This record gives sequence, structure tokens and C-alpha cells, in this order.
Amino acid sequence: MEKADIGLIGLAVMGQNLVLNMADHGFRVAVYNRTTTKVDEFVRGPGRHDNVIPTHDLEAFAQALSRPRKVMLMVKAGEAVDATIQALLPHLEAGDIVIDGGNSLYTDTERRVKELAAHGIHFVGMGVSGGEEGARHGPALMPGGDPAAWPEIRNIFETIAAKVDGEPCCKWMGEGGAGHYVKMVHNGIEYGDMQLIAEAYQLLREGVGLDPEALHEVFDRWNRGVLESYLIEITRDILAVRDEDGTLLLDKILDAAGQKGTGRWTAIDALELGVPLTLISEAVFARNLSAMKEARLRASEVLRGPEAHFDGDPEQAVAAIHDALYCAKIVSYAQGFMLLRAADEHYGWKLRYGDIALTWRGGCIIRSRFLNDIAAAYAKAPDLENLLLDDFFRAAIHEGQAGWRDTVALGVRLGLPTPALASALAFFDGYRSERLPANLIQAQRDYFGAHTYERMDRPRGEFFHSDWAGLARGGEG
Amino acid sequence: MEKADIGLIGLAVMGQNLVLNMADHGFRVAVYNRTTTKVDEFVRGPGRHDNVIPTHDLEAFAQALSRPRKVMLMVKAGEAVDATIQALLPHLEAGDIVIDGGNSLYTDTERRVKELAAHGIHFVGMGVSGGEEGARHGPALMPGGDPAAWPEIRNIFETIAAKVDGEPCCKWMGEGGAGHYVKMVHNGIEYGDMQLIAEAYQLLREGVGLDPEALHEVFDRWNRGVLESYLIEITRDILAVRDEDGTLLLDKILDAAGQKGTGRWTAIDALELGVPLTLISEAVFARNLSAMKEARLRASEVLRGPEAHFDGDPEQAVAAIHDALYCAKIVSYAQGFMLLRAADEHYGWKLRYGDIALTWRGGCIIRSRFLNDIAAAYAKAPDLENLLLDDFFRAAIHEGQAGWRDTVALGVRLGLPTPALASALAFFDGYRSERLPANLIQAQRDYFGAHTYERMDRPRGEFFHSDWAGLARGGEG
Repeated sequence: MEKADIGLIGLAVMGQNLVLNMADHGFRVAVYNRTTTKVDEFVRGPGRHDNVIPTHDLEAFAQALSRPRKVMLMVKAGEAVDATIQALLPHLEAGDIVIDGGNSLYTDTERRVKELAAHGIHFVGMGVSGGEEGARHGPALMPGGDPAAWPEIRNIFETIAAKVDGEPCCKWMGEGGAGHYVKMVHNGIEYGDMQLIAEAYQLLREGVGLDPEALHEVFDRWNRGVLESYLIEITRDILAVRDEDGTLLLDKILDAAGQKGTGRWTAIDALELGVPLTLISEAVFARNLSAMKEARLRASEVLRGPEAHFDGDPEQAVAAIHDALYCAKIVSYAQGFMLLRAADEHYGWKLRYGDIALTWRGGCIIRSRFLNDIAAAYAKAPDLENLLLDDFFRAAIHEGQAGWRDTVALGVRLGLPTPALASALAFFDGYRSERLPANLIQAQRDYFGAHTYERMDRPRGEFFHSDWAGLARGGEG
Repeated sequence: MEKADIGLIGLAVMGQNLVLNMADHGFRVAVYNRTTTKVDEFVRGPGRHDNVIPTHDLEAFAQALSRPRKVMLMVKAGEAVDATIQALLPHLEAGDIVIDGGNSLYTDTERRVKELAAHGIHFVGMGVSGGEEGARHGPALMPGGDPAAWPEIRNIFETIAAKVDGEPCCKWMGEGGAGHYVKMVHNGIEYGDMQLIAEAYQLLREGVGLDPEALHEVFDRWNRGVLESYLIEITRDILAVRDEDGTLLLDKILDAAGQKGTGRWTAIDALELGVPLTLISEAVFARNLSAMKEARLRASEVLRGPEAHFDGDPEQAVAAIHDALYCAKIVSYAQGFMLLRAADEHYGWKLRYGDIALTWRGGCIIRSRFLNDIAAAYAKAPDLENLLLDDFFRAAIHEGQAGWRDTVALGVRLGLPTPALASALAFFDGYRSERLPANLIQAQRDYFGAHTYERMDRPRGEFFHSDWAGLARGGEG
């Protein structure tokens, strides 16, 4: 029998859809699942396809694969990945390739690349974005790990990935845990994008007072401009869906947001690396606060907000909110790429930022027109220090900042929370500040803890300490 | 020879000062240091004291102690603590007590309590705050761990601790890592307090345009009201210190803030536990941003801010900034106690929040009049859900919120960053919101990932999924 081009272990929905995507593109795929009845169910059902080869043990699975073997794992992140690798190892030989397509923590991937290299196996950690739909018809793929694997697997994954302008949303991200790291940051950015849209929506609805029809129209319009993106598009759709009683179904949904952890991982990693990833962190915290529904209910009964009401021009306010969303989104991506840069310096992955943007343009949740502009910025300057310094984005922020400021001030005045919009603005104002009041913090630290300080008029690395209390008494006397 | 009441290992400045503090209070203290010349230097110098007993090996050290032995470690947090414990163990017996007074990570303390309990040794992790000065003349002490130790060590530590209204700033915090956890949160709150003061200072100086004399006067005045605290007091002092050329020494200090990690630990822990600790996290990130001095310089040359200038009434603005600082500080402590509460639920330490506030009132960096009010709130209601729900703080926020909002809006309009003030306000407005736009986030998650949602009109735990795209097409058609 003709050998398979690739094998896939783990036939949950994501795994099944990737198999079907590959099979439809002419690749022969051997499949295996630990609970083998799932294999039979699959090939009797959606997986009934000439290119799908069922197997019922790992030996048969490995024998079905052409060499070097390419094995993709779609099992639960964590211990199941290690267990599957251990079970698989006796059936592999040097030069074979294992690809983990789950949402693994990048540090696990770093470790697995090294562990399998010791066996001569090339390990790849691949971020897969786009959900079930993406897996079936074209996901964004973020492979990273052992570079020796890439030439062998490139054709398959470029073929099944989403395409934008004919280019596959699948680029080699870098060594070690690079692929899963980029996927983690993608998810963090997704948290940020969703929070920004939620804040804009609330301002439009409860601030400006737009009705559902007008809201739908605004998001429809926004989706035809610089904000054009999958998340704006689905927000527009959501604003068109009515419940049986004719009101928005959205209004029936409990306002307690869930999360699966990758946004939290991103924020924690930023804290570890010392990167001010404020917007995504606020987005994660905003979900935490939303989940405290009962506590908020109790608080709402005793804590009062301001009396103010919106009395401006609605059209103007909508335009300002648009600009706020756009500017804050630019900051969020700038922060995300700052984090990628810091991680790259720390881990030595050799990330290519333009390729990351190209990969995210299609197939995934944050896909947008905006990512073309980011890709363009990095194409012009591959070593661009910060997205905010790119001419295009700089001009966009300069143009939009008045509306952004008006929007944050509006939320503040009306008592509508805008943690992400406001945090992004504080970051922008801090980042463009030659001087920040951190000199006072350094003076305080030197006062109470003799932590010393550096001086503006002396070279870095020279440290000073003052007897502040004594000097203050002298200064006052 | 008369046995010692306690022994102390580790004669760096903090250790030395604690020994002298104990000795001055009539306790006999055996001392030991791994580099034993330090022992000799100490007892020939500042440690020349009838109550200080030098020892040069751990056997002699242990023999010098009355039983049950009480050994305090003041060695570098991390491996040195474990190494010292291992070296000490053969010289201890069941019932003896070991107290780690370093800045240990609470998870290490959790582990050590268990490990030493297996040897019959009672282990205590004790947060020590107040720096060198505090250690010498009265620190704030936060002991936690094996409760069997407390009756044995209570007298010594209550005696040497700072006193407020005659009461020692030393209470038993709880089991396991409770003491070090409370100290970690203390440090996080310290980051928040310092950032808030820095933001207020910048608004007063660059926004309102106060000169150094006026700034000094403002902080002096603030230190006689509700903001009275050590950090406001030292800020006042710092604003009185001139460099040789007659300008503020503060203006010569490089605006790149350092950090030692406990603020970061606090923020990471909040993310892990799902507690929206926004203000402290913004404070940590603000220090990160300040440290990017060269990058900010480059950005300041190309990124423009708004043209606006302050044109309000200076007195009014100063009063508003005062209220902003006070309200945001209330939020910061409310968030800090939320984190303590979540950790307590997670670890089962049985924290007493009133005792924590009492402990922080004196001796430590965040000591303030304000902590009396927090202690009073918990005295009235030991199980108070949230500080913002206490009548006193609720009234304070209701009274101050207009000024708070004006202040954040002022920063936004002038382009002066207020990440902590603004983040606290967003939290306040979110916390008092019966409804947040997280329903939109849930709708989006259900749209792209079939994550399901709960409904307002159905019991919690019932999950729904909609075919949003299909319904939207129907709704539009």
C-alpha cells in the first residue's frame, strides 16, 4: 500500500478537521487515536476519504508513514503530549519529525525540542489558529522548533494554510519554542482586540446611546475601513441577531467572560521579561472583573457613579470612538511586538516580525487589513524598533489621538470603564516622554532603602546616594 | 554561661540591626555568620553588647541557645536559606523553631514549613519591613507558618517591633507561607503608592505648573490630612533638597526606576489567581517603561502629544489631584486585600485582614494614617467582602470621585500619563457596574470558538450555543 505523507494522532474536532483539510489537498494521512473506536467512527463518518488511512496501534501507524516520518500531535496540551511522545518514540527513527499542533506552553516546547534532538528526532511546536473552521478550510500556522524539519513539512502546511493575496499564512517562526510563543502572543492580542471592541461598544451604546440598528450600522461601516477585521465583522453580525422576543440576543448573554489561560500566560511572560504589556494585561484583568458578577451586583447597589450624561454630537462621538479603537489597537500590537522582541533577545529564536504579521493576516481570529500594514512596516524595516516609530502608524496615531483622548475623557466623565483604551493612551504618553516622574521613585527608594540613583548629568553606571532626611532638614533650616 | 533567648544567622546590615534591637530590649542573642570573621568584626564593633554572644560554628551556636531553640535566618532569599537550614538541622531537635526573616518567595516558605515539620521543627516565614532603620528601631513584622511556634517567639518579636498607639506592628499572619505572602503584597502596594505619588507630582509640576516651593508646600499640607503617610512625608522632604547649583536635586536624578521583583511577583500572582490587581500591575509596568530611557528618548523625537495647556484654577486642580490620589489609593488597597482574600481561599491560611492592616500601620514603608481606617473597617466587619463597600471608604470615594475624574481627564487632555490613577478609576467603574460589555466578549467567543455562553434569564451553569453567522444572515435577510 502507498505510504502516507503524514500521520496525525488525536481525533478530536481540530484533529479531524486538519486531517480532512490535508486529505482534500491530496495528502495521504495516517490517523491514530488512543481510544481506537474514535478511529473507526471517524473513517466511517466524516473521515471516509481515499487519502485517510486508519490505524489501530502505533506500530501500524508508524509503518504506514513514508520516511522521514512526519507525525502531527493534536492531543491535549500538557502531560498528554509527553505521554504520546514517549509511546511513539520506540516506533520512530533518527530523522523523523514530530509536530505538536496543540496550545502548548512554549517552555514545554523548548524542552521537547532538546529532548527529541537527543534521539535524532526533529521536533516542531506549531501554533494553530482559526478554530474548527480554520482547521478545516485554512488555519494560520505558526511552526517553530528544529529548523531541520521545515524543508520536509513546509509543502504540506503551506498548502493547507489560509491564503492572503495568494500567500500562505504559514511561515517558519524560529527555533525552540518560537512557534508556540508567537501563538501565545497572538492569543494575548486577541484578548486585547476583543476588550477594545467591548469598550467601544459600551461607549457607543450606553454613552452615545445608539440603538441596535445604529450599532450594527456603525460596525458594518467600520468593517469597510482601517478597522476591517474578522472580530469587527463578527461583532457586526452579533449586533444583527435577535432573540425570540425581538430584542438583541446579545442582551440576554451573561456578562461574565471566560478564558482559557493563554492571555494570562502572555501577561505573566511580559512581567517576567519586564515588558510593559499594559493593554493585554488590562484585558485579562477585565475578564477577571467581569467574572465577579455577583460581587459587582452587590457593589452596584451601594457605589455611585457620576451624574453626567452624554450631551455631545453623536456623529462626532462615533468618529472619536473609531479613532480611539484604532489608536489603541496600534499600541496593543506595538506592545505585543515589543514582547516578541524581548523574548527573542532572551531565547535567541531569530524571529522575523514581518513573517509573523503575514502569518496572522488570514485564518486566525485576529486577521485583519491592519496586519498588512504591520507586514509592510517590517518589510520596509525588518529591524524596526517599535511599530509606533513606523511612519504609517505614527501618522495614524497623530491623526487619531484627539479623538482617542476625547473618548477616554468621555468614559471617565460618564463613568463607563475603558481600562484598555485608557491604559494604551497612558502607555503612548509615557513612551513618547523623554522624562517621566520615575526620578521621584528613585529618590524615594534611595531615601528609605539606600538603593542609590543615577544622575542625568553623569554617565550611566555611576551610582549616588544622598542623606535625604539630613539634607531636607538643612534645606528647610 | 546563661543561654541565649534567640540566635541569629546572617550578619549583613539587616541582621546586625535586628540583633542590636533585640539586645537593647534585654534579649540575649547568639550570633553566627558563615564567614566567621564577620562575627568578630561585629562584636568588636557595633555588636559589642553584653547581650550579644558570638559563636564560630553551628554546634556552638546551637549549644548557646535555650530550648526550645529559636533561630532566625537573615540570609539571602533562595538557595542560601535551604543550604543554611540543611547545615543547621543536625544541631536542632524536635520542638525547635526556625524563623526565615528574608524576602523569600511564599511558595518556598510553604514548602519549608512542611519539610521542617517532618523533622519536628516549627518553621516560620516572617516578612520584615522598614529597611535598616526599621530593623534597628522597630520594624513591621509579618510572621506566618507553623502556629506552634508563635507562643514561643511572640514576646521577642512583639517587643522589638514598631508600636502604634502602644500596639506592636507584629501579628501572627497565618499558616504556611502567609507571612511572606503578606509581605509580598505589602511590597506590591508600596509600588502602587509610589507610582500614584509620582503621577500626582508630575501633574502638579508639568500640568498645573507649580514651582518647587509650591510643590513642597502641597506635600507638606497633604501630609497633615488623610494622605498622611511615610511616603508623602519623604516626598515632601525630597522636594526640599537642592543640588549644589540651587536647583532641585530631584531634577538631576535619572528617571529610570529600578525594582527588585516583589512587585512583579505580586502582579503575577494576581494573574494566576484571577484577581484584577490592575493598579499594582500598571505600577510595575510603569517602572519597566521608565527603565527604557534610551527608547523613550528616541520616541520623544518623533511622536507628538496634544497641544493643550493647563488653563484651569491651580487651587482647584491641586484639590482634585489630592482627591484622585486618595481615591486611587483606596482602590489599590481594596485590590490588594482582594488578592489576599483570594490567596487565603486558595491556600487556607486563615488570614485576619484587620491584623494585616494593624501590622502595616508602623515600621514599614507604606505606614500611614490610612491604615488605621482600614483596620477600623475590618474591626467593624472582619469578613468585609471589599474595602470599597465599607461605609467610610465608600463615602470617601463618593466625595472624591469628581476630582478624581477631573484629574484623569486633565492628564488625558495634557498628554501626561496617569496609568495608575486611570486604571484605578476604570476598575472602580467596572466594579460598580451591574453589567459590563463582557456579554459581547462571550458572544464573540461563542461565534468563533463555540465556547458557549450563559444567559441572564437562565440559571448559572446552563450553557448555550448559537449559530451566529447563520442567525445574522437570517436577521439581515
